[in-house]
Amino acid sequence: MTTTPITYLDGADVARICAELPVVDIVHDTLLAFARDEAGLAPEAALRWTTPGGDSARSLVLPGWAAGSYGCKIINASLGNHRSGLPRAAGLIVLNDPETARPMCLMEGARISALRTAGVSVAAVRAVRAPGGITQVAFLGCGRQAEVHLELLAEACPALSEVTLYDQDSARAQECAASWRGARPDLTFRVAGHARDAVERAQLTVAVTTTTEPYVELDWVPAGAAFVNVSLDDAAESLLLGCDRLFVDNWELVVADDHRLLGVLARAGRVSAPGTEAPEKGRAVDADLPTLLADPAAWPVGTQERVVINPFGMGVHDIAVAAAVHAAAVERGLGLALPR
Amino acid sequence: MTTTPITYLDGADVARICAELPVVDIVHDTLLAFARDEAGLAPEAALRWTTPGGDSARSLVLPGWAAGSYGCKIINASLGNHRSGLPRAAGLIVLNDPETARPMCLMEGARISALRTAGVSVAAVRAVRAPGGITQVAFLGCGRQAEVHLELLAEACPALSEVTLYDQDSARAQECAASWRGARPDLTFRVAGHARDAVERAQLTVAVTTTTEPYVELDWVPAGAAFVNVSLDDAAESLLLGCDRLFVDNWELVVADDHRLLGVLARAGRVSAPGTEAPEKGRAVDADLPTLLADPAAWPVGTQERVVINPFGMGVHDIAVAAAVHAAAVERGLGLALPR
Repeated sequence: MTTTPITYLDGADVARICAELPVVDIVHDTLLAFARDEAGLAPEAALRWTTPGGDSARSLVLPGWAAGSYGCKIINASLGNHRSGLPRAAGLIVLNDPETARPMCLMEGARISALRTAGVSVAAVRAVRAPGGITQVAFLGCGRQAEVHLELLAEACPALSEVTLYDQDSARAQECAASWRGARPDLTFRVAGHARDAVERAQLTVAVTTTTEPYVELDWVPAGAAFVNVSLDDAAESLLLGCDRLFVDNWELVVADDHRLLGVLARAGRVSAPGTEAPEKGRAVDADLPTLLADPAAWPVGTQERVVINPFGMGVHDIAVAAAVHAAAVERGLGLALPR
Repeated sequence: MTTTPITYLDGADVARICAELPVVDIVHDTLLAFARDEAGLAPEAALRWTTPGGDSARSLVLPGWAAGSYGCKIINASLGNHRSGLPRAAGLIVLNDPETARPMCLMEGARISALRTAGVSVAAVRAVRAPGGITQVAFLGCGRQAEVHLELLAEACPALSEVTLYDQDSARAQECAASWRGARPDLTFRVAGHARDAVERAQLTVAVTTTTEPYVELDWVPAGAAFVNVSLDDAAESLLLGCDRLFVDNWELVVADDHRLLGVLARAGRVSAPGTEAPEKGRAVDADLPTLLADPAAWPVGTQERVVINPFGMGVHDIAVAAAVHAAAVERGLGLALPR
C-alpha cells in the first residue's frame, strides 16, 4: 500500500473531463452541502513577493473539503506574465486520501478555479432570475474568467443573444470580440467604449477585471438587472449600499478581507451580516448563497429590483469539482501514475 | 514557454539528493537569512478531519521563501496509519517559479520535513554545546524523527557512543534498538523503561513523541544537559520555567499556538518574548535561534547550565532545503517532466 502511486492530471486531462461535468450543479450542490456542514473551508494561506523582474506575485492556498474529499487549491499569479504571453494565474489542486491523508491526486488547477468561479455566478443568477429570460449580458474585463463565464452562461441561458464587452485595454476587448464571434456565430458581440455603456445595456453584468478601485455606480445598473461582482472591487459604494438585493457567498470571507470595499464597509459598520438588522445609514446583506439556494422562494426578487451578487470565492468548490474530476479520471483510467 | 514542464521528484530522488546535502548548514544559513529578512514565512493553513475509519487526520500547508525560492510544504498525517503499516506523515513540497509564480517543481516532502527538523536541532545544539563533547544522547519517542535526528547527530558529534531509547510503546523501543544496532555497530543502544531514566543519563535529550501532556520535569535533566523539545509538549512547566537557558526558533509561531504549553505560558504572561524583561513569577526566553546563531558568543552557556531548545518548526527551512534539492536535480537531470 505504501507504493500506491499518486495520480497526476495535466491541463488537457482536466479540461477534457471538465467539459463533460455539470459544473453549475456541482457548485450548487456544494453550496447546499456547505449550509448543512457537509462541506467546509479552512482559512487560506497567502505568500506574496516581488519577482526578480519587479512584478507583484502571490501564491494562495485554499484548503477545503467536500463530497468526502479533502485537499487544497494552490492558485498563483504574477502580474508580469502577460508580457511573456503567459496566463496571469496558474494553479494546482492537491487531493488527499481521506483515510491516510496522503496526497492522492495532483491536477492542474487554473481551469477548475475559473470554472467553479463561473459556476457560482451562474448558480446564483439562476436563483434570482429566470435564466430563460436573459438575452443581454455584459462583461467588464475580457480575460480568461470572462471566457469561462460565457461558456457556462451560454449553456444556462438559451435565449442569450447579445454580449457586450468592455476592457480598460480597448484593443483587448476588440480582439476578444473578434475571437468570440468566430467561436459563437449565434451570438452578437459588441464592444463598449466605456464600462457604463456596457452595464446600462445588460440584464446581467459580470465584472471580471483586476481593478482595485470601485467604479460601477448604482445609477449605471438598469432596473431588473443583476450585477455579479466577481473581481470584488468593481461595484462602488452607491451600488453595494443602494441595490435592492445583496447576496454574498460567505460572509466570514468577506469580513476577513481587509482590502475589498464590501469588507471595508462591513468593518466600518455600514453593511451588516446576512439575517441581521441593517445598521443606521447602511444595509444588511440579504442572504448568503447557501441560504439563498436552499430556499430561493424565501428570497423573492422583484422583476424591477437591482441585484448584486458578491462571490468572494470559496475553496470548497475547487475541491468538489476536483473530486468529480478525479473520480472520472479513475473511471476512465486517465492520468499519469507518479511514484511516491 | 507555456509548455515548460513541471519537474516531479519522488521520494527516492529526494532521499538520494539529500544524502549529499549539508542540511545542518543549509538550515543554519536559513536561520541567519531569516534574521536579515532574506527568508520568510507566511501564516500556515490547516485542514483537520476525522477519517472514515474514525481517526484524526490533518493537512498543514506552510508557505515560505528562502534563497530566492517561493513555495509551500504540505504535510499531512493520519493517526490511524500505523495500523496499515504506513508512516504517520506524508508530504509534498511545491516550488513556484520566482518570476511567473507558476508551479515549477513538486517533490516528496516528508523526508525533507524530517531532515530540516533534525537540522534545526543540530544547528541549535552546536550553538550551545561543543558537539565534540557529546557522548550520550537520549530519544523520547522512536519514530522516523528519532531516526533522522540520529543520522545528523552521529555526523555532528564524532564522540557519540551511547544512545538511550524510550518509547511509550516499549516493544517499539526494543525493535528500534535492534534495528539501529545493526545499522550502527559503532554505537551502544540502551532501552530505558521510563522516560526519566533516559533523560537522567543523557547530555542531550531529543523529544520526538506525539504526546499532548507535558511530563519531563526540571529535576530529570542533569546539570549541563540540553533538552530539545521537538514534539513541543514533552517539557513540563518546571523545565520550561526553571531551565537556565531557553531558546525558541520563532517567538511569533510559539505565541500564535493555542495548544502547546510554551504558548499557553506565554499567553498567561508567565513567559515573555526574547530580549524582554522577565515577568514576575516567570521568565523571558533567552533568544530566538536566528539571534543566537548570528552571535553565539553573546549568549554564553555555562557548562553546568540546563538548556531547553523549543523548535516550533518553520516552513522556511523546507523551502530552503527543497530549493537545494531542486538545484541538484536540475544539475543532474533527475526527475520526471510533468506536462502542464
